[in-house]
Amino acid sequence: MLFISAVTWYTLSKPGYFDCTGSKTLRCTFSSREPAGSRQSNSNPNRNPNQKWKEITDAIPLHPLDPLTVQEINEVKAILTKYEPFLASFPAIHSLSLDEPEKSQVVAWKKGDPLPVRKANVITVLDGHTHVVVVDLGLGRVTSHVMDPFSGYPVVTLDDLGAALVVTYGNEAFKKAIAARGVEMVDLSCITLSPGWFGPGEEGRRITKVECFSSEGTPNFYMRPIEGITVIVDLDKKEVLKIIDIDRAIPIPKGENTDYRYVAQDQPANMRPINPISLEQPNGPSFTVQDGHVVTWANWVFHIKADQRAGLVISQARVRDSETGEPRSVMYKGFASELYVPYMDTDEAWYFRTYMDAGEFGLGATAMALVPLNDCPRNAYYMDGLFAAADGSPFIQPNMICIFERYAGDIGWRHSELPVNGFQNRESRPKVTLVARMIASVGNYDYIFDWEFQTDGLIRVKVGLSGMLMVKGTKHENVDQVYENNELNGPLVSENAIGVVHDHFITFHLDMDIDGTNNSFAKVNLVKEETLAGKSPRRSILKPHRKIVKTEDEAQIKLKIYDPSEFHVINPSRRSRLGNPSGYKIVPGGIAASLLDLDDPPQLRAAFTNNQIWVTRYNQSEQWAGGLLVYQSKGDDGLAVWSARNRSIENKDVVLWYTLGFHHVPCQEDFPVMPTVTSSFDLKPVNFFESNPILRAMPNFEKDLPVCGPGSLYQ
Amino acid sequence: MLFISAVTWYTLSKPGYFDCTGSKTLRCTFSSREPAGSRQSNSNPNRNPNQKWKEITDAIPLHPLDPLTVQEINEVKAILTKYEPFLASFPAIHSLSLDEPEKSQVVAWKKGDPLPVRKANVITVLDGHTHVVVVDLGLGRVTSHVMDPFSGYPVVTLDDLGAALVVTYGNEAFKKAIAARGVEMVDLSCITLSPGWFGPGEEGRRITKVECFSSEGTPNFYMRPIEGITVIVDLDKKEVLKIIDIDRAIPIPKGENTDYRYVAQDQPANMRPINPISLEQPNGPSFTVQDGHVVTWANWVFHIKADQRAGLVISQARVRDSETGEPRSVMYKGFASELYVPYMDTDEAWYFRTYMDAGEFGLGATAMALVPLNDCPRNAYYMDGLFAAADGSPFIQPNMICIFERYAGDIGWRHSELPVNGFQNRESRPKVTLVARMIASVGNYDYIFDWEFQTDGLIRVKVGLSGMLMVKGTKHENVDQVYENNELNGPLVSENAIGVVHDHFITFHLDMDIDGTNNSFAKVNLVKEETLAGKSPRRSILKPHRKIVKTEDEAQIKLKIYDPSEFHVINPSRRSRLGNPSGYKIVPGGIAASLLDLDDPPQLRAAFTNNQIWVTRYNQSEQWAGGLLVYQSKGDDGLAVWSARNRSIENKDVVLWYTLGFHHVPCQEDFPVMPTVTSSFDLKPVNFFESNPILRAMPNFEKDLPVCGPGSLYQ
Repeated sequence: MLFISAVTWYTLSKPGYFDCTGSKTLRCTFSSREPAGSRQSNSNPNRNPNQKWKEITDAIPLHPLDPLTVQEINEVKAILTKYEPFLASFPAIHSLSLDEPEKSQVVAWKKGDPLPVRKANVITVLDGHTHVVVVDLGLGRVTSHVMDPFSGYPVVTLDDLGAALVVTYGNEAFKKAIAARGVEMVDLSCITLSPGWFGPGEEGRRITKVECFSSEGTPNFYMRPIEGITVIVDLDKKEVLKIIDIDRAIPIPKGENTDYRYVAQDQPANMRPINPISLEQPNGPSFTVQDGHVVTWANWVFHIKADQRAGLVISQARVRDSETGEPRSVMYKGFASELYVPYMDTDEAWYFRTYMDAGEFGLGATAMALVPLNDCPRNAYYMDGLFAAADGSPFIQPNMICIFERYAGDIGWRHSELPVNGFQNRESRPKVTLVARMIASVGNYDYIFDWEFQTDGLIRVKVGLSGMLMVKGTKHENVDQVYENNELNGPLVSENAIGVVHDHFITFHLDMDIDGTNNSFAKVNLVKEETLAGKSPRRSILKPHRKIVKTEDEAQIKLKIYDPSEFHVINPSRRSRLGNPSGYKIVPGGIAASLLDLDDPPQLRAAFTNNQIWVTRYNQSEQWAGGLLVYQSKGDDGLAVWSARNRSIENKDVVLWYTLGFHHVPCQEDFPVMPTVTSSFDLKPVNFFESNPILRAMPNFEKDLPVCGPGSLYQ
Repeated sequence: MLFISAVTWYTLSKPGYFDCTGSKTLRCTFSSREPAGSRQSNSNPNRNPNQKWKEITDAIPLHPLDPLTVQEINEVKAILTKYEPFLASFPAIHSLSLDEPEKSQVVAWKKGDPLPVRKANVITVLDGHTHVVVVDLGLGRVTSHVMDPFSGYPVVTLDDLGAALVVTYGNEAFKKAIAARGVEMVDLSCITLSPGWFGPGEEGRRITKVECFSSEGTPNFYMRPIEGITVIVDLDKKEVLKIIDIDRAIPIPKGENTDYRYVAQDQPANMRPINPISLEQPNGPSFTVQDGHVVTWANWVFHIKADQRAGLVISQARVRDSETGEPRSVMYKGFASELYVPYMDTDEAWYFRTYMDAGEFGLGATAMALVPLNDCPRNAYYMDGLFAAADGSPFIQPNMICIFERYAGDIGWRHSELPVNGFQNRESRPKVTLVARMIASVGNYDYIFDWEFQTDGLIRVKVGLSGMLMVKGTKHENVDQVYENNELNGPLVSENAIGVVHDHFITFHLDMDIDGTNNSFAKVNLVKEETLAGKSPRRSILKPHRKIVKTEDEAQIKLKIYDPSEFHVINPSRRSRLGNPSGYKIVPGGIAASLLDLDDPPQLRAAFTNNQIWVTRYNQSEQWAGGLLVYQSKGDDGLAVWSARNRSIENKDVVLWYTLGFHHVPCQEDFPVMPTVTSSFDLKPVNFFESNPILRAMPNFEKDLPVCGPGSLYQ
């Protein structure tokens, strides 16, 4: 069966319904409750289930970057099953995805051409070793096999986590510890955390740290930590290594007012109701999705796909020149390369909580079906993700990505002349954009990833944070009981619950190819210049000093408010009619730096957050900012290591990296579910176009807009 | 006649149609062209003109903060006409607006109570002196009269600027200079710039600097500067003081491809058309505007009014507590206090271009009627501004403010649990917000001001920049002709046109009254703490250090990426059930600092941009960051002066000031009209609510959403 849902996979015999999935804050529970099971929110509004099923099973690759199909995944599995080194014991498949062709092949490919040979990149674990294998589907065999290329292990699998919970739940000492806290096993919810890396003590074996909660009286178990119990489990030997049971006097926070489900609300919000409001397009959306993955809208064309690790990958983004109609390359590939979340607490159960969600759990692996009408507006188009399970079989993340057009009442450009002069111009153009969205629910946190395309050539990359805080139990019910507020590692957000301070850093891989592969990186520094005495009544001005950055070392950028620069990726070979090089600039936003010691173990592993901007020489293997293998890695692979090679980046194929940062000091409003906080950065054309590309955009006219009636009248 | 449009005011006899209005980049022209005159975009879609006219003329004040009515403005004028010091010569009215009652009176006032006595604050210029006068409408007389309280003069009037152009256009030497540049007088467009202040040379008299353009072949004359001609005019004596005529060899940039009007486009944009898309609310908007100025929406209530200087003023913003239903004070008053735009060029015609648009020209005075369906979406509600002209008569800025609800496909909060566990939660809530918008077209630039209210208590203050660049003529047509790119003071944006580098700083006055008048300012500094050796495998964490700021001096904040803090305005007397003080934090965005020398004359005048955040003790007279009188001021009044008093701000009535900043290095895409660039900051509840106030928000259901058809079917 194709839909290998973790439900069927991990359901054990009753009593004690059991399930697990691969998430940092994986919930695993012994429970007599059955999954409730309305599948409505899983359904793809665009297609009926039968048609969808057929589309998925029959799909063939149509573009060099298309993800592996069901058939291809099955072929890879078949090849690996017969592969000599795996005959004795079939390894766990931690990652199985398209090994993308060389960029030159992809760029040269045109629709109608035969596809470059299809290959799969497979990362497996066998006997405690990592095997990185390339399967050539043309040759039907393994063509590359590397063992333990770096420290660390690949993304954990559902099997890993399921097994960790099986041994935890079956451990007698653990059961006693839970019972001693007054929690029934049916109310127990545990999550399996990545342990980070903190020196030799835990090296040489794959482990997880299990932390537990009570879900008595609430589905929002995150708000009810059983503080101080940590179970360390060996994932390969499937055994409990250690149970830590401290902080026994800390009460479990109560569950009242933590249920966030609509059905559980017994009264409406105390505010005037909001009338129905909706983005309406009676003629339908203006974009098309061709061949399953190629989006065409306004002046944009790009390839989009779901990825188990990155979540959502945008490739070959091209914008049509508003003068010539020429499709021009902007970005070869863009995606969230890593998501680093260090918590700020040195306690036994907390010091290691320094997640790297993409490399440890997978942003696509944790991206559940979007909720129609609420996660995405009407007229959204939904796409599925197709990944491989631990046994090598294909599985689907349904409705994982949505694509929609957005009109928010904003203005693309405008100008009014005072109505009294000879030119009574009153011109304004509405701003309509295209959004591609994916939401990873990495356990407690929900990360909303938006790629927004504007007709003026700008790409806005947005990350919204919602979901649940990771709270810590405390004896305190009121800040008056705390001698010094600084004693706590975060504010009290509810009785007996601290919202532990933490950061979020999302590092994006932005392989810019402005009008072609070879680009340069220019820093346009705004420098204060003093005026020579007597030359002008003005004493100082800012002057832009443009400098081409020669090497990776120089391209390690820490943003400075009082020494500002613009950062351009330019094509030195393509100049405008005025002679300006064609370029895009990155406009930083969501600026927060990691302030941890550079030699603190989590920061060694997340050294890619030591700067906000990096530019590296393109190398197809350098995709993941935290390194290929992140789980328990030591930081011997990744962006900081590559950049340290200090390669030349002038007029070369280069990759831009940007880190969006959030410092999060929680507050009461974040309890029991957090209102979304959003930050974004922009990729913005700068002398890429000869002039404003939306000068000739259409205004809105009344006659074109929809005519609508209340939905209730039409039911 | 009430609608004293500048057209009727300033129209001279033909031939030579002449008109002027009060704008920095005022366009004044001798022309045989009549104003084209479609009034459609002026009409208020909410009301028919007759009804509107009656509403305006009959209006009476209903709230202590309501702006002066037509009748009140006429009363003020009548009183001043009989006022002894003005009998000999009636002064020019530069500003005439409500003298707001004491805050305590306003706060105590309830609907149904009699209004506090109505007073007008009038700033006039007579014989080169500034007179600040308070007229008590209850007593029917002047109750306060101060002459020349500070250096500088009030906002210029239309009369000032008209007169400056009359004397310029009539000057024979000027005519010769223009003719020598090959420009016909019918194609001449001049603008009257504020001169700033640069020492004794130009002190002691009100002057303007006139710069001119050719509008031959384009209504976008801004793109065609006649570089190097500057006419200095004495505004009071109405005489040309000096004509500077340099840079005669610099050609006037051509007008091709600069016309931005829809009617002038001869071909559609080279992109796939976008189908109609619209925000639809078939049941209508959910907000009401009561008594002309009080907006009620969801959990918000606030007073809104147009202001000639600030543009848009939000007062008494209160949010209803989601638990108790109690209306709770958040902000007493918020508005754009000043807008400082220093250009970065030391040349004769450029060094002084360091505008303070609110205090020199008026953001409301330059806020033209919004364009329905394009500046604001359908269902927007439009409000007029009512101001006083230079002769003291009332005049209207029609449709100056719009208010609308916004749904942009964004998410208020959400959480998905993995579908395989016992709790199949898939909850998401759409984000709907309320926007109040005003757009000031201060000559070339258009500033879009949005106040956006969210149901989670957040207020987002956004400024969007569009309109025209101020370009400088140059002999160069290609950057190859420039010896060193740094030779230019900005990039070449078209042939013979440099986009001169400049900054924009918008300083907001945010009189926060969190749960009452007396508040404190807390800085929550995130400090790196090293772990004691052996205490934890973790070496460093960030810890929030909370500190109440005692004085204004300590509250002068320069933002630091590597020494981050949160900035809270709290009410120390109101604590949550957990003991946390009720508060709002300011979340900075659009962070750019002014880097000019502190003793550079423009920076002395704009010393309010020396920090990004300030907190001052409330004083009703301290409203304008650049001082009461800004035109040619020396910086002896304003935020920096007030803060230097170093008053105590702990548990006092305090005002928060925040400066949004933009460094603008222009590019080709900004030519001939700029795609909108937007920045924003947030005022965000922090322990103000006991918990997430939108926990019980409604999701969208299909049955509630509109049913729409294409507009074309219904025409």
